[in-house]
Amino acid sequence: MMKVLLIGGNGFIGSHVVDKLLVCGARVCVFDRRPEQFRPPLKEVEYVVGDLDDLPLLYEAVAGSDAIIHLASATVPATADLDPISDINGNLIALVRLLEMLRAFPIKKFVYLSSGGTVYGPTDVVPILETHPLRPINSYGIVKVAIENYLRMENYLRGMPYVVLRASNPYGPRQGHSGVQGIIGTHLWRIARQEPVEVWGDGSVVRDFIQVEDLADLCVRAVSDDVVGCFNAGSGEGASINDIVFEIDRVVQATGGPPVQPVYKPGRSYDVSRVILDITSARDAWGWKPTISLSEGISSTWDWVRSQVSSDEA
Amino acid sequence: MMKVLLIGGNGFIGSHVVDKLLVCGARVCVFDRRPEQFRPPLKEVEYVVGDLDDLPLLYEAVAGSDAIIHLASATVPATADLDPISDINGNLIALVRLLEMLRAFPIKKFVYLSSGGTVYGPTDVVPILETHPLRPINSYGIVKVAIENYLRMENYLRGMPYVVLRASNPYGPRQGHSGVQGIIGTHLWRIARQEPVEVWGDGSVVRDFIQVEDLADLCVRAVSDDVVGCFNAGSGEGASINDIVFEIDRVVQATGGPPVQPVYKPGRSYDVSRVILDITSARDAWGWKPTISLSEGISSTWDWVRSQVSSDEA
Repeated sequence: MMKVLLIGGNGFIGSHVVDKLLVCGARVCVFDRRPEQFRPPLKEVEYVVGDLDDLPLLYEAVAGSDAIIHLASATVPATADLDPISDINGNLIALVRLLEMLRAFPIKKFVYLSSGGTVYGPTDVVPILETHPLRPINSYGIVKVAIENYLRMENYLRGMPYVVLRASNPYGPRQGHSGVQGIIGTHLWRIARQEPVEVWGDGSVVRDFIQVEDLADLCVRAVSDDVVGCFNAGSGEGASINDIVFEIDRVVQATGGPPVQPVYKPGRSYDVSRVILDITSARDAWGWKPTISLSEGISSTWDWVRSQVSSDEA
Repeated sequence: MMKVLLIGGNGFIGSHVVDKLLVCGARVCVFDRRPEQFRPPLKEVEYVVGDLDDLPLLYEAVAGSDAIIHLASATVPATADLDPISDINGNLIALVRLLEMLRAFPIKKFVYLSSGGTVYGPTDVVPILETHPLRPINSYGIVKVAIENYLRMENYLRGMPYVVLRASNPYGPRQGHSGVQGIIGTHLWRIARQEPVEVWGDGSVVRDFIQVEDLADLCVRAVSDDVVGCFNAGSGEGASINDIVFEIDRVVQATGGPPVQPVYKPGRSYDVSRVILDITSARDAWGWKPTISLSEGISSTWDWVRSQVSSDEA
């Protein structure tokens, strides 16, 4: 039975990967800065709470593992740009140090979550293939590219098997509400708290949204076999911010909520107008495809957000 | 009269850029870890000896400058791979910090010396265009790519004018003899000291060698106008290691030296077989082209090496 070390396993995406791994019968060790936050600690899971800077602790977690899924990020795009040097220290250097450690522990697979929304940079190409030039224009994307390169180097020089998943915009149950983890969660949390929904720009910006359970499914497939390389991990379809607001409005009203009337604010000039990922490579490699529609995904996210708000109030 | 800050101006390449800048009538400030090493300090040049970590010192040097040419590197490819974290700290973080400082001092141009031999990674494409995917497989190249990306980001978000020059293998007078700065200098120094010339592999590996004065000429052109972007900076032609040894043998014997009989050693498995840069973009942008043939370049380098050895012995 394979033992998988899940770095960042107590986060939004990580918690869903835990669920999928357990269903597949894997042994799971979660390494995270934070303890379990969505449920009581699972008795099947070994939890190691600590920082990636804590090398002895990390060493112990790595030593017994057959494979690693690395989902942790010390930053989100907005915070990375505020302080690129912390971004480099917290993400890039931490990753390089981990790769050096792994030379003593041959593993079967290293799966790393990169960012399909930032590594390509501004482009008119739709949909974007993995071979598209990488021209990131924010620190978050630049550091992701550097990490992808160190992983490729480790594979090239020492044969370490790796998969990079360039995720688009994941959303779904357990998504944070602080406004930095993506607009679907942010909007739904604001609606649940009776706060106005804000749209930056005219809402025409198009993004590729992937439901988190579909993404978690891909992580688990990627860790289990011999495929190596960089893969887009999106829905393969685009939705505008206005599409999302429309869908949210429908879902909220269907549960008896009020109509959603967004407040439009001046747009950020550096937003790329359309990002849609071509996901043919991941389909070909693993027979994977997204199974949860935007409508279903928003609906289950809304159910989860409401359950959280009512339990907060209880 | 434009004032140019030349970071790394006391190095092999930098010293030639100083010469070209002075000919063009620019005011020159050299910022370097080391004092002038090739000649008595030039009275036209302002020297600031210090580390890029010394922010107050750097701030003062930056404050009065119209443009910057950045040639400094805390590493060479071999040392970068030995300690990638120092590579990231000494080169990438230092550069990001400098870019943050520059937001307070709008400059006319930032010219950065990148590495055409490492940023593209292994490829069968000959010659290599700037649009070729960047897939470096050593730390030196990965960090160069990250720096290029931060420069592009600074241009995209805040309009900072930049030129990246992806140099091939520079050689020529004043090249170091420690064995890390390139084979032409290394070979000639060894011959001058009556040590055997070593060739790693069978000598079939092809590289693009550019004489340092041609490269310095390009640096000066790039700092002087409005062109922005990434440019290959090579000769546009390939020479194998065996070609180099043959040419060196010819030049050395023509000055009464002994025949060159290289000692062949096992090759490094990660050497890319052929790297030749397409230099059409730099030609089109600046009307620049290399003017010094390999034969002339090796001859002048040999003259310089011999002058150094005889002055050492004097």
